[in-house]
Amino acid sequence: MSKKKIKLGAILHGVGGNISGWRHPDAITDASVNFELYKKWTLKAEEGKFDFVFIADGLYITEKSIPHFLNRFEPITILSALAGISSKIGLVGTLSTSYSEPFTVARQFGSLDVISGGRAGWNVVTSPLEGSALNYGKREDQHPAHAERYRIANEYLEVTTGLWDSWEDDAFVRDKEKGVFFDPSKLHTLNHKGEFFSVKGPLNVARSKQGQPVIFQAGASEDGKNFAAKVANAIFTGQETLEDAQKYYADVKGRAKALGRNPDEIVILPGIGPIVGRTQEEAERKYQEIASLTSIDKALDFLGRFYEHHDFSQYPLDEPFPELGDLGRNSFQSATDKMKAWAKAEGLTLRQVALQVATPKPTFLGTPEVIADKLQAWFEEGGADGFIVGSSTPQGLEDFVELVVPILQERGLFREEYEADTLRGNLGLPIPENRYTKHNQTAVRS
Amino acid sequence: MSKKKIKLGAILHGVGGNISGWRHPDAITDASVNFELYKKWTLKAEEGKFDFVFIADGLYITEKSIPHFLNRFEPITILSALAGISSKIGLVGTLSTSYSEPFTVARQFGSLDVISGGRAGWNVVTSPLEGSALNYGKREDQHPAHAERYRIANEYLEVTTGLWDSWEDDAFVRDKEKGVFFDPSKLHTLNHKGEFFSVKGPLNVARSKQGQPVIFQAGASEDGKNFAAKVANAIFTGQETLEDAQKYYADVKGRAKALGRNPDEIVILPGIGPIVGRTQEEAERKYQEIASLTSIDKALDFLGRFYEHHDFSQYPLDEPFPELGDLGRNSFQSATDKMKAWAKAEGLTLRQVALQVATPKPTFLGTPEVIADKLQAWFEEGGADGFIVGSSTPQGLEDFVELVVPILQERGLFREEYEADTLRGNLGLPIPENRYTKHNQTAVRS
Repeated sequence: MSKKKIKLGAILHGVGGNISGWRHPDAITDASVNFELYKKWTLKAEEGKFDFVFIADGLYITEKSIPHFLNRFEPITILSALAGISSKIGLVGTLSTSYSEPFTVARQFGSLDVISGGRAGWNVVTSPLEGSALNYGKREDQHPAHAERYRIANEYLEVTTGLWDSWEDDAFVRDKEKGVFFDPSKLHTLNHKGEFFSVKGPLNVARSKQGQPVIFQAGASEDGKNFAAKVANAIFTGQETLEDAQKYYADVKGRAKALGRNPDEIVILPGIGPIVGRTQEEAERKYQEIASLTSIDKALDFLGRFYEHHDFSQYPLDEPFPELGDLGRNSFQSATDKMKAWAKAEGLTLRQVALQVATPKPTFLGTPEVIADKLQAWFEEGGADGFIVGSSTPQGLEDFVELVVPILQERGLFREEYEADTLRGNLGLPIPENRYTKHNQTAVRS
Repeated sequence: MSKKKIKLGAILHGVGGNISGWRHPDAITDASVNFELYKKWTLKAEEGKFDFVFIADGLYITEKSIPHFLNRFEPITILSALAGISSKIGLVGTLSTSYSEPFTVARQFGSLDVISGGRAGWNVVTSPLEGSALNYGKREDQHPAHAERYRIANEYLEVTTGLWDSWEDDAFVRDKEKGVFFDPSKLHTLNHKGEFFSVKGPLNVARSKQGQPVIFQAGASEDGKNFAAKVANAIFTGQETLEDAQKYYADVKGRAKALGRNPDEIVILPGIGPIVGRTQEEAERKYQEIASLTSIDKALDFLGRFYEHHDFSQYPLDEPFPELGDLGRNSFQSATDKMKAWAKAEGLTLRQVALQVATPKPTFLGTPEVIADKLQAWFEEGGADGFIVGSSTPQGLEDFVELVVPILQERGLFREEYEADTLRGNLGLPIPENRYTKHNQTAVRS
């Protein structure tokens, strides 16, 4: 068996995942709605043998949202469009279980999975922003609470994975002579009736080559980690240090094992936003260039987003980060808990917190070798099975593919060619057998 | 101004829009989930300068559904994938307003519209099948009644068209130097609160080059025609004779006019399933070949679909078509009304009705010239602004593009080259101005 390899995803986020990346001299300012660019990035990632591209999402904006969130592609549509122009790379996107219908979502991801020949992945989220309720016929105070959102998500996954198995893999006979299109004994009606959903089925799209779309999860709270350990095939996480990454990795794999799952069948992928320079100084300069683009006003607005759009301009900038009580715990629970603890531990001011949160200095910053060393350490020392690479600079993805990937390949840490043409195949995940498949015991015995 | 031209759409329906087309010797039996084939068809239609491809949909299947319905692509995903591989042709798909959320649907069609550079169209339907309720958390008897479905659809359209105008066309300033990404005075929050929906907005995707996706409608009942006259930019209709087509055309254009709309801004497109032969006899033979593939049992099942899955096997086959009372009126109202009247008028038996409904003999059948003559007559005599071409045989689209289109072009009835690169542009529809755009009166006066 060949040595285990690093898995890589590329997060595509248009004008950038932060407030002011779009102001970078090299930034293409309509990037978030520029299909040609998304195409170019996807083909670049495929050239770099990445496992997948990743499209994040959100269901509520205000005029204070960061530029990329204001006007961007919806995940199902952009992933499907990218399916048409790529052939090997996985296509993973975020979709919320709090404001959608499982029958529709099972169909859309199922259909994307068939169109792409088994390359779809669904990042299951529960919608942290209370404002989302307002776009879906509810009041903000009707946004389900954190724990309930995960109960909904659990049942939601039961429904969608059940619908995906509606048709056994050999259900379609397609015998023209006999006039038999399918075998009715291999069509299964789900008849789900639960606490939140009642869905009859069957689904009107059958399984792809990879059986079912890959389930991604990004929850970092207790509820989130339990949910991930139970249902996820891959986890998009976010630790800043190897130690934290190791802790998270061991924690989630342990939870999965306790639930009777094989921990090797969950791929843990910290998100990173590397800055690559020919020298350490060049990388530092690149970071300073980005950081300098952010004004304190915008940074405060951005900070507010994690705390239910709380107005931080009411506090003095250069005094200790304010006491916020439980604020933020029903939206971005783990992020805000961590932020509060970090501000307290390091005695940071509001200004320091806001600017750091707005333009965090990447952990992975330096020459290609330095970055490769760090990736290798995280991978070999139990911190990660791979990474989801975001771009901290407009050329971030190109830099990574052209400068870092070849080093990983040289070291035998990353593939030179795709092992498979499905996402599960490349991620080293088994194809889930259809729950209804009956094994012919007689045949096995004879 | 150049002469008005025929508009053409191609409906792509995999293994076929009827029960047994998949049994044809030339049929590709996995066509409904074969992306390469959808790609080939779309490029063929684009080569033929068609205005658009069209993807129909349904939200409920049973084992008696026709083969294409059992396992097929979901419209949003397949249209988006086709957007990636085409450049001029419009991309139109069905999506129901009875079992979806307007914020999500506005986003998905809005995003498809941007990805495709202004080529999206949405065929607004209200879900005729009561079974759909069962896949969306409701009982069959909770499927909204016909009239209520249209009330919902009317309000739904208010919401989606409102959301699409969230951003004025010049809202995005993207001034790196000043750090101004957009002009907040050009961002509009809908704040819709109605009978069925409450949606705040704004939408997180801005308008495409064509302003808003083209609204298609196919309703043929009274409610349907009124709805179409009010909101549709294009209508997918289905008449069998020129006389009926003229009646429908005059009726709907009249209703639009009465509502203060310019009737030229509604494109009326009867659906046709032409069979082209080198001779009339060859075309007839092609039809007989298809018709012979259908068994009476399958034909009865198919008939049942229009009547809430009514079991027709309980009636004698060779006696007059049974009395059904109001059955079918809450699902396919206009189709079943018409069928009952037709059976009565012609004194048809159940067998005759079932076989004719299962494999109707196309009105447009014959040599390329005969078909072109008929298309021209319908177009010039007030029956149609164009046509939506379905394939009655596996090679139907290729035959039409290669044999019929050149004749229409020769006669100056159809374009030789696309007039525009948006769907509205090609259909001759104006780009709707954003409802919030303020005109600078001073500038106009000076």
